[in-house]
Amino acid sequence: MTSAADRQRSARMRRRMERLYPLLRSISGDGVRATLDVLAETVPLRRVGVPSGTRVFDWTLNDEWNAREAWIADTDGNRLVDLADHTLHLVSYSTPVRGRFTRDELLPHLHTLPDHPDWIPYRTSYYNRSWGFCLSQHQLDRLGDGPFDVLVDSTLEPGELTYGELFLPGETEDEVVVSSHVCHPSLVNDNLTGLTVAVELAADLADRPRRRHGWRFLFAPGTIGSLTWLSQNPDVLPRIRHGIVLTGLGGGGPLVWKRTRHGDRPVDRAATHVLRRYRSELRDYSPYGYDERQFNAVGFDLPVGRLTRTPHGEYPEYHTSADDLDFVTDAELAESLEALTSIVDVLERDTTYTNLSPYGEPQLGARGLYPSMGGKAASDAVMAMLWTLGYSDGRTSLLEIAETSAVPFERLHAAATDLLGSGLLAEVTGSGGEGERFLRAVGEELGDRQ
Amino acid sequence: MTSAADRQRSARMRRRMERLYPLLRSISGDGVRATLDVLAETVPLRRVGVPSGTRVFDWTLNDEWNAREAWIADTDGNRLVDLADHTLHLVSYSTPVRGRFTRDELLPHLHTLPDHPDWIPYRTSYYNRSWGFCLSQHQLDRLGDGPFDVLVDSTLEPGELTYGELFLPGETEDEVVVSSHVCHPSLVNDNLTGLTVAVELAADLADRPRRRHGWRFLFAPGTIGSLTWLSQNPDVLPRIRHGIVLTGLGGGGPLVWKRTRHGDRPVDRAATHVLRRYRSELRDYSPYGYDERQFNAVGFDLPVGRLTRTPHGEYPEYHTSADDLDFVTDAELAESLEALTSIVDVLERDTTYTNLSPYGEPQLGARGLYPSMGGKAASDAVMAMLWTLGYSDGRTSLLEIAETSAVPFERLHAAATDLLGSGLLAEVTGSGGEGERFLRAVGEELGDRQ
Amino acid sequence: MTSAADRQRSARMRRRMERLYPLLRSISGDGVRATLDVLAETVPLRRVGVPSGTRVFDWTLNDEWNAREAWIADTDGNRLVDLADHTLHLVSYSTPVRGRFTRDELLPHLHTLPDHPDWIPYRTSYYNRSWGFCLSQHQLDRLGDGPFDVLVDSTLEPGELTYGELFLPGETEDEVVVSSHVCHPSLVNDNLTGLTVAVELAADLADRPRRRHGWRFLFAPGTIGSLTWLSQNPDVLPRIRHGIVLTGLGGGGPLVWKRTRHGDRPVDRAATHVLRRYRSELRDYSPYGYDERQFNAVGFDLPVGRLTRTPHGEYPEYHTSADDLDFVTDAELAESLEALTSIVDVLERDTTYTNLSPYGEPQLGARGLYPSMGGKAASDAVMAMLWTLGYSDGRTSLLEIAETSAVPFERLHAAATDLLGSGLLAEVTGSGGEGERFLRAVGEELGDRQ
Repeated sequence: MTSAADRQRSARMRRRMERLYPLLRSISGDGVRATLDVLAETVPLRRVGVPSGTRVFDWTLNDEWNAREAWIADTDGNRLVDLADHTLHLVSYSTPVRGRFTRDELLPHLHTLPDHPDWIPYRTSYYNRSWGFCLSQHQLDRLGDGPFDVLVDSTLEPGELTYGELFLPGETEDEVVVSSHVCHPSLVNDNLTGLTVAVELAADLADRPRRRHGWRFLFAPGTIGSLTWLSQNPDVLPRIRHGIVLTGLGGGGPLVWKRTRHGDRPVDRAATHVLRRYRSELRDYSPYGYDERQFNAVGFDLPVGRLTRTPHGEYPEYHTSADDLDFVTDAELAESLEALTSIVDVLERDTTYTNLSPYGEPQLGARGLYPSMGGKAASDAVMAMLWTLGYSDGRTSLLEIAETSAVPFERLHAAATDLLGSGLLAEVTGSGGEGERFLRAVGEELGDRQ
Repeated sequence: MTSAADRQRSARMRRRMERLYPLLRSISGDGVRATLDVLAETVPLRRVGVPSGTRVFDWTLNDEWNAREAWIADTDGNRLVDLADHTLHLVSYSTPVRGRFTRDELLPHLHTLPDHPDWIPYRTSYYNRSWGFCLSQHQLDRLGDGPFDVLVDSTLEPGELTYGELFLPGETEDEVVVSSHVCHPSLVNDNLTGLTVAVELAADLADRPRRRHGWRFLFAPGTIGSLTWLSQNPDVLPRIRHGIVLTGLGGGGPLVWKRTRHGDRPVDRAATHVLRRYRSELRDYSPYGYDERQFNAVGFDLPVGRLTRTPHGEYPEYHTSADDLDFVTDAELAESLEALTSIVDVLERDTTYTNLSPYGEPQLGARGLYPSMGGKAASDAVMAMLWTLGYSDGRTSLLEIAETSAVPFERLHAAATDLLGSGLLAEVTGSGGEGERFLRAVGEELGDRQ
Repeated sequence: MTSAADRQRSARMRRRMERLYPLLRSISGDGVRATLDVLAETVPLRRVGVPSGTRVFDWTLNDEWNAREAWIADTDGNRLVDLADHTLHLVSYSTPVRGRFTRDELLPHLHTLPDHPDWIPYRTSYYNRSWGFCLSQHQLDRLGDGPFDVLVDSTLEPGELTYGELFLPGETEDEVVVSSHVCHPSLVNDNLTGLTVAVELAADLADRPRRRHGWRFLFAPGTIGSLTWLSQNPDVLPRIRHGIVLTGLGGGGPLVWKRTRHGDRPVDRAATHVLRRYRSELRDYSPYGYDERQFNAVGFDLPVGRLTRTPHGEYPEYHTSADDLDFVTDAELAESLEALTSIVDVLERDTTYTNLSPYGEPQLGARGLYPSMGGKAASDAVMAMLWTLGYSDGRTSLLEIAETSAVPFERLHAAATDLLGSGLLAEVTGSGGEGERFLRAVGEELGDRQ
C-alpha cells in the first residue's frame, strides 16, 4: 500500500531519470555538466572542475571529450547509424573522423551483440585513441556493401573533469560518503537509478533538523572521478566513518550489499541488519566493480560498501541498450530507497547506552512500562525494553543489540528513547569510558554493602 | 532399564510434587513457607525472611499476601467458583472483597481461556492492587445471570518475603548457584519439577565425600526473590563461577539449555557437551524468562544458564490448570536429573593437566596401557588416553579436550585418572602457570642436548 | 592427457614400488637398510644407525630383529605357511622357534581374517616377546590336524635402528620436514606409495635452482623411528616451519588432508587451498594415526599435517595382503604427487607484497596490463592483478589473498610476478615492517597535500 507521498516520490524519481536518459554522458564533457544541472534542481550541488592534465595519483586527467554529431551513411546520404538516435551508437571518447570507407575498412570499427541482435552494446575507449560505432546485429545485417560515409564530429581537447558534491554538515566531525557515478550515457539501471535515489536521500537528509554525521554526496565519473575527488580532499578522508556506493538499484534482482574490504565495518553491520527484512543477498568485497574499489584501496582503506540489486555483469541487459527506462520499475526503486534510508537511519541513530538500574530488572511496572496483569507473554515493546536494558553495559551499541536479539533496530531505538525518558538509560558519549566507570562504581558499591 | 534405586528416586520426586501441588504459593505468604517445609524434609534448608518495605535495588518489597477463602456463589449460596477447589481460581495478590455483584460488575474480574474451555488460566496482580478470579470457559458459560455473592478473604499486610537456601561447602572458594522458583501455585511443570529435581541434586551433592565447588541452592520466589537474595549476599557474588536455573523439567519437549548472556562460559560448554547425547536444543540468551535474567543483568553479570524442557510459552498447557501432575512423566524427570547430574559432574571434575612425558607418545605398552599385539585399531579407552596426553599442555582442560575430540567427558576423566596413577600426568593447580613452566623447561632441556 | 614426462614418472614410481614390495621390512633390520638402498638410487640419502638400548625420550631402542626363514610344515616336510611366499606370514618381531606342535598348541599363534578368507593379516609384536604366523582363513581351513613342524629362524640382538635422511638446503634457515615410514613389509598403499612419492618430490626439489626453505626428507620406521630422529636433532626442531607426513597415497579414496594439531597453520592453509581443486576431504587432527602424532606432541608442537587418500582403517584392505601392487593405480599416485607438489609450491612461493601505487587503482592500461576497450568483463588475468594490488598492504600474503579471493594461488603468483616487473609491488622481507612503514609514509604524504 503506497501513500500519496510515496507516489509523488516515485513520480519524481522517474521524471528525473527520463530527463537524464537522452544526455550524452562520458567521463568528461557537456553531458556530465548537463546531468549535474538536472540533479542540482533538487539539491544544491557544488560543481568542481579539475583541468585536463592534472596528475591524480597514478593517473593524468585525460582531455575533455565532446561529440556533437556522429553517423554512418550510405553514399545517398541515408543515415544508417546515428548518434542522434541513441547515445550508445558512438564509442565513448571516439576521435574525430570524416571520410568514405569500404565495408572492410569500416567493419573493425563496428561493435554488435550477436546473441542479442536487437540490442546496442556500450563501449568506451577512454585511454586508447580510436573511434567506433555500436549498433544492433540487425542494423549490421542490413548495412549493405558500402562504401559508407562516416562522420564523428567530436573534440578531445584540454578542458576539465567535472563532478558535483553536496555536503550536509552534522553535529559531529564524522562523515558518511555516498557516491554514484555520472559517466554512463543512456543506461538506466546503470546508473540513472543510483543518481535519482541518491538525490532523494540527499533531499531527505537535508530536511532533517538534526544529523549526527556530516553527509557527503558525490556525483562523479567512475574510477577517475572518485580518484580525482580523493586526491582533492585529503583533509576529509580521516573523517569518513562510513560510505555507500549506489548503482543498479532496479533491474529485478534482490537487494545486494557488497561488503567493505574488511567486511565487518559498522556500515556492513547496519546493511546486514536492515537487508535481513528484504529479499536480499550479502556478498564479500572483491576489487572489481564500481568506485568502492577506489575507496577501499590499501592507501585509503575507507569502509565503503555498495548497495545494488542484481550486480553488473549478472544480467544480460547490463551495458546494452536494453538497460532502458522500461527495465526499471518504480516499485523496485521505492524499495531500494526505503532500504537505503533504513541503513542511513541505523548509522545516524546507533548509540551506546549505560543501564542506570543495572542490578537485575528495574521495576518497569512502577513506571507504567510493564503490563499490570502478570502471567501472559511479553509484548514486542516490553521485549525491546528488556533487550535494551539487558545489554546496555556502556560498551554494546543498539545495533549490536539488534544483531544479537534479531529485534528490528527501529523498535530498540523506540524502546531506548522511552527508557532514556524514564531515566533508566544514559547515553555514552566520548570514549565510552563512562559506562564502564559507572558499572565499576556500582560493582564497588555492591561490594560495600556487606 | 531402571534400577531399584532409580525407581525409588522417581517415586520420591513424584511424592514430593504431589505434596506440594495443593499448596497456595505466591511471591510471599504461608504457601511459600509450607513449601520450604516440605523441601526441608530432605535437605537442611536455611529459611530467610526479609521484611516488607525493604528496599531491593530498584524495588521495594511488597506486603505479604495470604488468602484463606475465596469464592463466587449464587444468591442461594451455591459456590460456583471456589479457591478450595483449585489454587488457580484466585488471581494471586487479590485484595479482600465481600459483596454482591451484578454479572456486568463481576465480568471484568473474571479470566478464562476461550480456546481451551476446560482449563483455568493463571493470573497474578502483584503490584497493581485489584482482585479477580480465573475459571474455565465452561464454568463461565454456566455461571448464570447473577447477581453473585463474592468473597475474597485475603490479607495484604506487612510481613516478609521468604526464601530457602542450602549451602554445601566445597574444597575451594568457588561456588555454583542452583536456583528454582517457589512462587507458582498448582502448576507442576512450572515449577514443581524444578523444585523436586533441585532437592534430589542437593541431596546427592550433600552425600559426596568431596566437592570442589561450594554448591548454593536457592528456593525463592521468581524475580523479586532472586533480587532479594542478590541484595542480601553481595559478598557471595564474586565467588560464583557457574549457575543453573531449573524449571520446566517435564512436559515432553527436548532438553533445552538456555545459554548465559555471554554464551560461552564454562557452564555453557559443560551443558553443550552433555546435552549432545540427548534429544536437546541449545538456545541463546534472551533477557526474558526466569531468574537467569536477574543473575545475568549487567550489574551482576553472573554466568547463569537455564535447564528446561520445552520452554515457557511454547506449550499450550503453560500457565494453565492443564500443567498438572499428569502433564509430567517420571521418565522425563529422571532424564532431566540424569543430564543435570552429568553437567554438575563436568563442572566438578573438569581439570587441566600437564603431560609429564610430552616428547611424542610415551610407551603405554610398557605400562600395560596399550595392547601388546600391533596392527589393529585402537580401543576407545586407548583413544581416550591418547587424546588426554596429546592435548594436556597445561592450558587445555579435559572439557576442552572433550569438545575437540567428541570423546565423552566421563571417558576422558577415566583415562586421566589412569594416567595420573601412572605418573604420566600432573594436575595443574593455582594459576596454571606450572604446566607452561614445565613445558618451557623441557623445551630448554631439549635444546641442551645438542 | 598425460605427457611423456608424466608417463616416465609413473613408470619410475611403479618400478620403485615393485622392487620394494618383496623386502621384509620392520622397525629395524636388514629390510629397512635394503629399502633405503633402493631409495638412495634416486636421491642421496644419509643413513643413520642408532644402537639398540639407546634411550629415546620415554622409550628404549629395541634389539634389532632379522628373520631369514620361517615356516609351518606338516610332518612330511610340506611347507603349509612360508615366509618365503609372503612377508606378512610372519608376525613382525617373532622370536626364534624350532619344534613340533600339536594343532591346539599351534592355534594361539595363528592369525587370520575370517571375514576376508583369502587375505593374510598384518600383525606385529614389537615390545612383547612372542611369535606367530599370519595366514589366510582358507590356509587355516586346509591346515590339517597336525602335528606341525615350525621354524622361525629369527634373531633379536643388539644392533641398530636405521633411518635415512636427505637435507636440501634453502635460502633461509626455515625448514620443511617430509616424513614417510619404512617399517611396513609387503603393504603397498601403506606405505610404498608414501616412499615412492616422497622420493619423486625430493628429486624434483633437488633439481630446483632455488629453494626458499631447507627441505628435510625422513625415511624412518613409524613411531620409534621419528622419535629417534626427533631425539637426535634438537637443534633442527626450532627451524621447522611446516611438515607433511606421506602415506596411503593410492587406494581409490579422495585426497585427505589431516590438519596439524592447531589446525590453522600455514601448511594447513596451503593444503586447504590446493585440495579445493580435487576430490578431497579435510579432517581435524586426532592423536592417532602416523608420525604426525609424534611431531605434534605437546613437547614438540611442530606444525605437521598428513596427506593420504582414504585413511588407515577405513578400507578393508588396510593392513592385509590385499593392499598389494594392484590396489594402487598409477593415476592415483600421479594425482597425489601433483597435489603434493602444488602444496609445496605454495609453501615455497607464498610472499607478502606491498602495493607501491596504493591510492586507488593504478592505471594498468598505461602499462599494457589492462584491455584498451572498456565496457566488457575483466579477464581472469586482470582480476588476479586487481586482487593482488587490492590486498597487498604489506601484511597480507598471496596465500591469504588466494583464500579470500578463491583465485588459484598459481594465478595470483603469476600476476604478482608481472606487477613486480612493472614496479607496482615490492616484496616484504624481514619482519614485514617495511610495508606498513611505506603505507604509513604515504598516509602522511597524503595528509601533507592539503
